[in-house]
Amino acid sequence: MKAVVYRGARRLDVTEVDALPPGPGEVRIAVAYTGICGTDLHIFHGDMDARVGAAAVLGHEMSGRIAEVGDGVTAFAVGQPVTVMPTRTCGRCVACRRGHSHICHAMRFLGIDSPGAMQASWTVPAELVLPLPDGLPLRHAALIEPVAVAVHDVRRSGIAGGERVVVVGGGPVGVLIATVATRRGAEVLLVEPDPFRRAVAAEAGIDAVDPTTTDVVALVDDRTAGAGADVAFEVSGAAGGVETAVAVLTTRGRLVMVAIHPQPRAVNLHRFFWRELELLGARLYERDDMAEAVRLVASGAVAPERLISRVEPVEAVDAAFTALERGGGVMKVLIDWQEPTR
Amino acid sequence: MKAVVYRGARRLDVTEVDALPPGPGEVRIAVAYTGICGTDLHIFHGDMDARVGAAAVLGHEMSGRIAEVGDGVTAFAVGQPVTVMPTRTCGRCVACRRGHSHICHAMRFLGIDSPGAMQASWTVPAELVLPLPDGLPLRHAALIEPVAVAVHDVRRSGIAGGERVVVVGGGPVGVLIATVATRRGAEVLLVEPDPFRRAVAAEAGIDAVDPTTTDVVALVDDRTAGAGADVAFEVSGAAGGVETAVAVLTTRGRLVMVAIHPQPRAVNLHRFFWRELELLGARLYERDDMAEAVRLVASGAVAPERLISRVEPVEAVDAAFTALERGGGVMKVLIDWQEPTR
Repeated sequence: MKAVVYRGARRLDVTEVDALPPGPGEVRIAVAYTGICGTDLHIFHGDMDARVGAAAVLGHEMSGRIAEVGDGVTAFAVGQPVTVMPTRTCGRCVACRRGHSHICHAMRFLGIDSPGAMQASWTVPAELVLPLPDGLPLRHAALIEPVAVAVHDVRRSGIAGGERVVVVGGGPVGVLIATVATRRGAEVLLVEPDPFRRAVAAEAGIDAVDPTTTDVVALVDDRTAGAGADVAFEVSGAAGGVETAVAVLTTRGRLVMVAIHPQPRAVNLHRFFWRELELLGARLYERDDMAEAVRLVASGAVAPERLISRVEPVEAVDAAFTALERGGGVMKVLIDWQEPTR
Repeated sequence: MKAVVYRGARRLDVTEVDALPPGPGEVRIAVAYTGICGTDLHIFHGDMDARVGAAAVLGHEMSGRIAEVGDGVTAFAVGQPVTVMPTRTCGRCVACRRGHSHICHAMRFLGIDSPGAMQASWTVPAELVLPLPDGLPLRHAALIEPVAVAVHDVRRSGIAGGERVVVVGGGPVGVLIATVATRRGAEVLLVEPDPFRRAVAAEAGIDAVDPTTTDVVALVDDRTAGAGADVAFEVSGAAGGVETAVAVLTTRGRLVMVAIHPQPRAVNLHRFFWRELELLGARLYERDDMAEAVRLVASGAVAPERLISRVEPVEAVDAAFTALERGGGVMKVLIDWQEPTR
């Protein structure tokens, strides 16, 4: 079977490997679709070599069907549609002991610390597998993991119905946060400079503005009668995004830090003091967030089809990564692993 | 009677003025002691001229006795010991409407936006006055306002008994936060480079370390078996203080931003993301915080005597400000307005 193997910065090989039979408590999944995530792109750039190592199989956003079950696995049957929560936790560290195992200090992340889902079949512990309802298209199911990120971020914000929300950054996670927040009853404004991404958001019914031509703070002031936003999500990863997210907030407003900022950023701490603002880091998701993401996608409350810009066969994986790193004109790219009966 | 009038940067005049009779709903207080605060120092440096204007009477930390009551005031009697909550709120702005009137957007702060307590008698609205229990020394009562700041900051942190707390900055507010947090059952470490301030903290039973000779992060790690602190208070106003306060925190740790940072600061946002940290701005106090501060000082739970480095007559006000701006060897300086029967 085929697998995409990371050989070092900008080198992805499509190679033939043997499928790994499931051990006790494991299942082997025939992968249908694998999504490419920002983290995969970081790895592709060589930024995470110390953690990933060479000869790693990337990928942690996926859908598929059970192909084989190991000894002792009774919860799953061959043919059943599934997705995977790609986080293995230690149960012993401070985070785990304090009830925050989703950000376990010794986390083994599938697709980073152990082989991931960019292979035709993937063998994983059954306890990480979530069953999918029949009738949920598997290409949509490949986006459940990023939907779970958005569910976690929105939960962390404590959004209440009617609250004013600004999402800074309109990539897949930004658009999904905007969608989930809207479902929670919030009034959402998305801030994104890329016209393609704004158009995708607009198709999903999200009000999206261009920060290069719109004074976002003035717009939020205008729409809130000078009050400011209750919640901002920083999903851009840019210095200017942090600035905007702080500046739009009302008294006691909450800023959820979703993006990865590798360098320290200049933050207006005086504003945090003056308005008693709150900054809340948000990372990954808990099991409940994954389950909620399955429900949202299955019910159509979150419709990921618009986010899927391209679906490519594994042979085009290089082109897929290259398209993503250019950024413009693309949201989510999926790799299709199914036999070409499609 | 005497008053200290601010004439512009570094110019304080001690002048004779007439006592202002109380209007309806007002009281005139014979001031006993006025404390000098960091904000007063900012004004003294000319940093707040746009807001303060010339010919202003500074001061908002005080104690005294009712000297005269205006029409309609029934809650107070002449001779009663009191202190003042120096914040007038508008009741109409976003903050007030959202239940956060203590950080009212249109706040009139006594001693900044209207005449303050650096005068022998001070006429204020009775609704801002808090009665003091008999037997509470008035020199201690002059510190109730900064104690209220500490009470508010600790309340904002949501400290629970047994939590590990790091207070970065050991000026009066830092020491008071450490004291109040200890009373709440927390295990507190204070970080302060000035040896005099560390000594004052140590006398109050607070464990204080010097960040110029101690690796604070390593020490906290060591004391918490690698877990990190539950709560940090940034009270130093220094860039390095922010860095330390972020670095010591455990997963989901809370950082309370107490200090004023006029310039944006480099903040390790990745750490906020990675450990799902929380940053909480905290400013001033609510009426309940003032009432709690009165109880803490009256009961001896907070003993401010150690924080009072000097008590000066009004004629020495210049020397008092100069001593404070040098920083070392001094905590709180009080001006004594009482007739020299002392």
